[in-house]
Parts: sequence; C-alpha cells; structure tokens
Amino acid sequence: MNTQDQKLFTPGPIAMDPETIAIGGTQSQYFRTPEFSKMMLECNEMLQTALDAPKDTRMIFLTASGTAAMEATVMNLFTAQDKLLIISGGTFGKRFEQICNIHQIPNEVITLEWNEAFKPEMLSRYENRGITGMLVNMCETSTGQLYPMDTISDFCKRNQICLVVDAISSFLCDPFSMQKYGASAVIVSSQKGLALHPGMAFVAVSKEAFENRCAKNEVRSLYLNFNNYYPEILRGQTEYTPAIGIVNQLNDKLKRVLGNGVDMYINYCANLAEYFREQLHSLNSLRTVSYPLSNCVTPVMCTEGGAKQIVNSLRDEYGIYVVPAAGDLADSMFRVAHMSQQLTKQDIDQLIILLQSIKNN
Amino acid sequence: MNTQDQKLFTPGPIAMDPETIAIGGTQSQYFRTPEFSKMMLECNEMLQTALDAPKDTRMIFLTASGTAAMEATVMNLFTAQDKLLIISGGTFGKRFEQICNIHQIPNEVITLEWNEAFKPEMLSRYENRGITGMLVNMCETSTGQLYPMDTISDFCKRNQICLVVDAISSFLCDPFSMQKYGASAVIVSSQKGLALHPGMAFVAVSKEAFENRCAKNEVRSLYLNFNNYYPEILRGQTEYTPAIGIVNQLNDKLKRVLGNGVDMYINYCANLAEYFREQLHSLNSLRTVSYPLSNCVTPVMCTEGGAKQIVNSLRDEYGIYVVPAAGDLADSMFRVAHMSQQLTKQDIDQLIILLQSIKNN
Repeated sequence: MNTQDQKLFTPGPIAMDPETIAIGGTQSQYFRTPEFSKMMLECNEMLQTALDAPKDTRMIFLTASGTAAMEATVMNLFTAQDKLLIISGGTFGKRFEQICNIHQIPNEVITLEWNEAFKPEMLSRYENRGITGMLVNMCETSTGQLYPMDTISDFCKRNQICLVVDAISSFLCDPFSMQKYGASAVIVSSQKGLALHPGMAFVAVSKEAFENRCAKNEVRSLYLNFNNYYPEILRGQTEYTPAIGIVNQLNDKLKRVLGNGVDMYINYCANLAEYFREQLHSLNSLRTVSYPLSNCVTPVMCTEGGAKQIVNSLRDEYGIYVVPAAGDLADSMFRVAHMSQQLTKQDIDQLIILLQSIKNN
Repeated sequence: MNTQDQKLFTPGPIAMDPETIAIGGTQSQYFRTPEFSKMMLECNEMLQTALDAPKDTRMIFLTASGTAAMEATVMNLFTAQDKLLIISGGTFGKRFEQICNIHQIPNEVITLEWNEAFKPEMLSRYENRGITGMLVNMCETSTGQLYPMDTISDFCKRNQICLVVDAISSFLCDPFSMQKYGASAVIVSSQKGLALHPGMAFVAVSKEAFENRCAKNEVRSLYLNFNNYYPEILRGQTEYTPAIGIVNQLNDKLKRVLGNGVDMYINYCANLAEYFREQLHSLNSLRTVSYPLSNCVTPVMCTEGGAKQIVNSLRDEYGIYVVPAAGDLADSMFRVAHMSQQLTKQDIDQLIILLQSIKNN
C-alpha cells in the first residue's frame, strides 16, 4: 500500500493540509537572507499569538524532536539547586523524570497508576514545600489524560513555582493560554496539531524565566543552549541550519491558523473527539476510560482483549493507522487520535464500522 | 523573487534533485510500522556502503543539524580522561574547540592562520604525546581547505588515536573511505552532498569505538546519547520521532547514489570545481587561494575588495546565491559552492559572465 493512502488516526505525524504538503515539495532556499529572516520573525510573532503568550516571550526554534525540546527546557531552566515536581502519568511524564535524573536535578514525582485520574488534592502535600519548578505534560499522550491546568497553574502561582508545560499534543487541540496559566515555558512540536513534517520543536520561555534562569544557567551544551538561539532569533536567524522545509510549512500554517482563529482548530478537534467517543458507545466490547481526556486522542479499552489484532487488521487490511498501547496494556488498549483538520466525521464513521466488523469476526 | 527560482551556489542547502523535491511533497507516514523499519534498515545499510564503512559500523540517525551531530559525537566518544587534538582552520574547527571546552574534554589545537595550508609536519610534535582522539573537519567549509586525510589517518593509526572525521561537506564531493582511514566516527548531514531538506545528521561509529567508548561512557543527555539510538536502529527504528520526510528522501537518494556509484557524484563535483576554478582565471581581480581545496566549495578572493557588493548584486539582481566570508574577510572574500548535481557548466558560465559584468560596473 502506498504510504500516501494511509488514513492516520495517530498522534503524530497527523494528516497534513494540502497546502502544507505542497510546501514540503519545494526546494529548501538559502536561509542567510533578509527574506528568510522576515519569515522567521513572522513565525516568532505568530507562534506567540497562537500560544497567547506575553509579547516579550522568547521563542526558541529547535531543529529536533519534541523530546529534545523537553530536555533542553529542563537543562536551560533548572539546576541542581532546584526542586522540581513532576506529574508522571505515562510515557511522557516518565520522560521528564528520566531527563531530570540524567541532569541531576532534584525532583519529586506524583505517579499516577494506570487509569488513575489526577486529583487536585495530590498537590496538597507539596504546598509550601520549597518546590521551585513543575513539569507537566498537559495531555499525557500515552494515556490521553488531560490534566487540570487551572488547578496546576493556581498551585504554581500560589507557591511561586516555575511552571513548564509540555503542550506538544495539546497545542491547537485543547484550549491553552500561556498568559493565563502564567507558564514559564511551553513546548510544542511540528508534527502534532500544527500538522507539519516532524523535525522541529518550539519552546516559548517567559522573559522572567529567561532572564532569571536561562541567561544565568551554565548550560553544558552547545546545540541545546537557549542562549545560542535568543536573541539571535530577533534578527530572524538561528545559529545552526534550521529545517528550512519545516519553517516554510510553519509560516504558511500559522498564517492560516491565525486567519481562521485558534478556536476554530480547537473546536474542530473537540467535535471530532466528542463524535468518536459517542460512536464508541455503539460497540459492545470497546469503551473509553473515565479520567478526563484531551481532545487530541481517545484511549480505547478492549474489554475482551484483542487490541493487537484490531491495530494490525486496520493497518494491514484497510491502511488505517491507530496506535497500540505500550507494554502490559498492548493487548487491552489502543489509541485513536483525531487531531487533524483533514479527518472528518465520515472517516470516524468508517472507523467505527470497521471496528464493529473486526470485533464480529 | 520566488524562492524556487534561486540558483544556489551555497554550501547547504544545495539544489535538490526533482525526485527528492517530489518526495518532500508527500504526507509523512506513520513510522512505527514494518514498512518504515524496512526503509530505515535500507538507509542504515546504504549509508554504510556509501561511506565505505566496515559492515559492523553503528549508524546513528539524529533529527538535528550537523552541529548537534558534532557535539553528540564528542560527548559520546570522549571524556575528561581523553586528550584530543583538533585541527582548527576556520568556523567549524573552532566549533569543535567550543564543544570540547563546554564538555570539559582536554584538548590541544593546531590553529591555522587565514590562508595557511595545513602541513603534515604540524603533527610531528604530537607524536607519542598521549593524544587519544583527533577531531578534523575533512573540508573546513568556511575556507574550503581540504585536509590531507591520508597523512592524518596514518598519524592516528601510528599513535592509536581515535579519529573523528566531520565529513559534512565532503561526503559525496571528495573521495572518502571510513575503512581506509580507520576512522572511529564519521559525521554527515542531510543538506550537503546528499541534497535533501536540512534537518537530519548521521554519525557512523566503528564497532570498536562504540563498544569501548560510547557504551561505557556516562553521557549526560537523553536526546544526544548514542546508546538510545543503537541497537534500536537494528529493528529499523529511532526512540524519538525522526524527520520522516527526510528519511523518505534519504532512502530514495541513497538508492540512486549507489545505483550510479558514489564515484560518479564525486567526479561530477570535481569536474564542476575544476571548471569553475579554471574559468576564474579569466577574471582579473578575482582569484582563488593556494592551499589545497575540497571539491565542494571555492573561496574567491577579491583583490580590489567589493565582495559584499558582489554577493548582494548576484542575490538581488539575479537570484544567484554565493556566500560571504565571515568577520574581517567579509569584503575581501566570498565562497562559491558547487556540490549539487543540478548545477551545470552552463550555470558556471553564467556566473562567470555576471561576475565579470559586476566587476566592470
């Protein structure tokens, strides 16, 4: 099957707009030019707007995956003198733990069991306990759980905690405001809600966090040191060659996002999510979970097992891609993402019919 | 001017083949699949072949720029117990110095003055001096100087030195053999001789260096730790989402490179370089340098100054991109790269005519 015929219900890469695909198919232009600088400056400003970030926010444009941006953010904002709190409810929470441990940054962890909802009272024992930073995956992509950002933000404000939000899968899918949450740093990447080729990640750092943390921190890296990206970006450049093809896609996409309004994208995703979750009720042995969910992805529990067979049948027989759960859950759960504007309710209808038919065989 | 009309004489990005451009214009497929794994495994094997690497070489596929690959290679192969020797003859030699200093790896530096050729006798004082590793930019892209790899390789073999070759601009432009040079690591990137979109870099690490160095080294990074890439790549996967669009281009390009033969690409580049350097003689106030040059780029000295004006005129009036020299040399030198199979002798004829005409105005 031609890869172009794949129907992607995966949480990245997601189906790209025809405009974005077309831009991928153009020559990478030389980038040390006034024209390229202008385009980067536009991206810089538009990303701030889309994140509802304060105007003096510093944007870092990394040519790397979201994981590199998570690691760089921790390396640039924190040191061994900090004490971080991590909400760890799946693969990406664990990744933050791993990053802190590698870089020897003291941390405490709120670990959620499988299927356990985060509860505001889990934060109580960390009030006034000298926590200086908090790491949260707004949507934990491996489970779909959406953490209550208002509660978390209030806790951080009350305790003067530097809040880092991994919004990689939530950006353009769930309502978000850097300003409202008072976040010190927000991480997004190219192949999720933005629906570009994978290969870039973007970090918004508040002026205060940049000046009081990044600029004073002795970051032991060249490539991942934010001080090598800002203020360079203010002249529309990056020190190292960026993924030019993706920058071209980003510029075009952000213009369309802001033209249509960020809310339009979030609502579209919310509607698809709601529709899929409703339709799921019609399937006897499949159901979703009880904890709060992001709009971007729905975990589907197979009460009679057989998740692997469903994932493989959809892929091999129909070119439809949903993603298996990791580890122990591999045969009891799969995930269906619905982040792309290119997915429709008809696509979901088709998926539901196929799920019904596979379960009956 | 539409960026698609740019005529690129730049040392990255370079003009891409029509096939490569077309592949950039396709949807990024989901990558945790047997099909994608197969493609990565093919890339793994083909890159080894193109580098003339021993069959047990470990290939690392990084989604990042060449600088990240340079940094990762130093971080993974060396520690504070090493003593490195760096040939530093321009921007990229200095970058190796900077990386070693950030990561506190002891180093000695052979610094070349501007326009100074590297001479084999510069190595004499480092014989039997406990040097454990050597870092060399085979072609120092900022000056075009090609270092004598046979001499350097012999020196390293004689002194049991772990040789790291940055072949970023030389790969597919200058003759190269990892096997012959006995290199412990070789670095290449996507937007140079391979002529793909920028955004990926590849490191070939010898089995011995991987087992005796990378595997034992406590690398303080998640994203840049080679142990998180190998042996993962043996099942055709990377731990973090790769730049799928570039992997697709790489697979296609390497098939064509190996089909035509690596030598065909090197010869094409050598012929263009020779032709341009010959034609340059016809221009009175322009000449190239006397040190040995890589095939990939020609530094052009303006004996009467005016380099900036030439660079700007070519760009603004004709859409032709050559690159200025850095710093003090900005008005006395520019560089002309000729790495792309899409450039022809006719393109060079046109460039020479325009250079003549600009100089006469």
